[in-house]
Amino acid sequence: MHERRTITGFSNPLVKLLRSLRDKKHRKREGRFLAEGLRLLTDARLSGTLPEMLVMATNRQPHPLLEELECAVGDAGGDVVEMDEAILAKVTGKKNPQAVAGVFAEFDTHLTSIDRTAAPIWLVAYEMRDPGNLGTMLRTGDAVGAGGLILIDDCADPFSVEAVRASMGAVFTQKLARAGWEEFLGWLRQGEGQLVAASLRNAVDYRNAAYSAPCFLMVGNESQGLPQACEDACDLRVTIPMLGRADSLNAAIAGAVLAYEALAKLRKN
Amino acid sequence: MHERRTITGFSNPLVKLLRSLRDKKHRKREGRFLAEGLRLLTDARLSGTLPEMLVMATNRQPHPLLEELECAVGDAGGDVVEMDEAILAKVTGKKNPQAVAGVFAEFDTHLTSIDRTAAPIWLVAYEMRDPGNLGTMLRTGDAVGAGGLILIDDCADPFSVEAVRASMGAVFTQKLARAGWEEFLGWLRQGEGQLVAASLRNAVDYRNAAYSAPCFLMVGNESQGLPQACEDACDLRVTIPMLGRADSLNAAIAGAVLAYEALAKLRKN
Repeated sequence: MHERRTITGFSNPLVKLLRSLRDKKHRKREGRFLAEGLRLLTDARLSGTLPEMLVMATNRQPHPLLEELECAVGDAGGDVVEMDEAILAKVTGKKNPQAVAGVFAEFDTHLTSIDRTAAPIWLVAYEMRDPGNLGTMLRTGDAVGAGGLILIDDCADPFSVEAVRASMGAVFTQKLARAGWEEFLGWLRQGEGQLVAASLRNAVDYRNAAYSAPCFLMVGNESQGLPQACEDACDLRVTIPMLGRADSLNAAIAGAVLAYEALAKLRKN
Repeated sequence: MHERRTITGFSNPLVKLLRSLRDKKHRKREGRFLAEGLRLLTDARLSGTLPEMLVMATNRQPHPLLEELECAVGDAGGDVVEMDEAILAKVTGKKNPQAVAGVFAEFDTHLTSIDRTAAPIWLVAYEMRDPGNLGTMLRTGDAVGAGGLILIDDCADPFSVEAVRASMGAVFTQKLARAGWEEFLGWLRQGEGQLVAASLRNAVDYRNAAYSAPCFLMVGNESQGLPQACEDACDLRVTIPMLGRADSLNAAIAGAVLAYEALAKLRKN
């Protein structure tokens, strides 16, 4: 039986720390992020990632997955912390005695941590500002067997609660890297890799394009798209049909349509 | 020159009414919804839909699109209302003197308003609870040339501010219908129409499936998916490859991947 700490006061410094992890500045300073919910924490565990700290309500109902999680965290030398439901609600923002949260160390997000030969597809987000879109890109990446997501320039924080939630656990299985545009391009050109983006200039129909692995599928900012310099640097520009009034898709949708097309073509080769 | 009303007090009943439209219950009672932003309101105008009331800040900067909008609303006999920036911020939740909002009458959402022969693709959402996902489905529907979105049973409100925003104007161009499952199925079987859903049982690869128009692509609830009865009622069940750890895609992503595949196949026929 591992030791559990019990927190009884709202003003406990740990409660303040946990709440502060909802804020990007504090996440960065602490090098930690928060993931919530038994399903997400179980996905993390099954992917081989355990929280440094597991937080749950004193009056929770027993659940076999939660017991396994608690044992695993304890075995790994992590912290298991109980607190009153009302205090936990301050941390998670949810009035739910079954709420559970984990504190994780942020991963290495240097480009050097990426082995481009490990997967046929990589997703690239250029200045994507919506954390939900980033999480959805991670989830789609997992589904198409991508290696990970590379964040260029000023993107939303992939370790925000919203992004982690939308990733449905893929934040723990997909590689994540952050880089400036020039840094990324320099790294890309040091090895094999086809850079692909949706574009309206000098582009071919995305269904007839010659995708090749490792294929880096780049999606632009939600309102501005990609700057011309980024499009010009691409090895392949493709168009996705737009038959209606609008001239663009949601960024995560565009990424998914491209990724599934590339997957189908690459599997045929 | 049309008459403009100027609201100077926070307690003006109109301010309360506008704020109340952020709430589903009040939208339903009033039969009205709110759309925000000059781009969205311009999209609406260009699609032939004008707000009954246009609301903007007294100290706004002039903008040609806003002037066109104001003229059009006035010409159509609508209301043009100015208010202090601080009061407008209470309505829109944004401290922005360029903020602008429109009040629209909700559309007819009976199945009887839908002419299934008008488009090769229709999207169907079964108990989708996330308004952002509904809005994204509308936006994708516009892009693939779908006729509209049919909402089955207990879905999020497509007239919520979040859904309208995520639709990027497609709420004004796509048909919208709401129905119970049995009602929808009865209506569907009164005419032509192939009902398609992603499924793991008795399903074919979505790339090799025989889509036929009018093709009704159904996506399930974000956490529960589709009940077996709904899958059983489908004319075609398809699988989308899932190569990673997760067993599902985001609902709006799954809908888009299916919709673009169906579009490509239907255009070849």
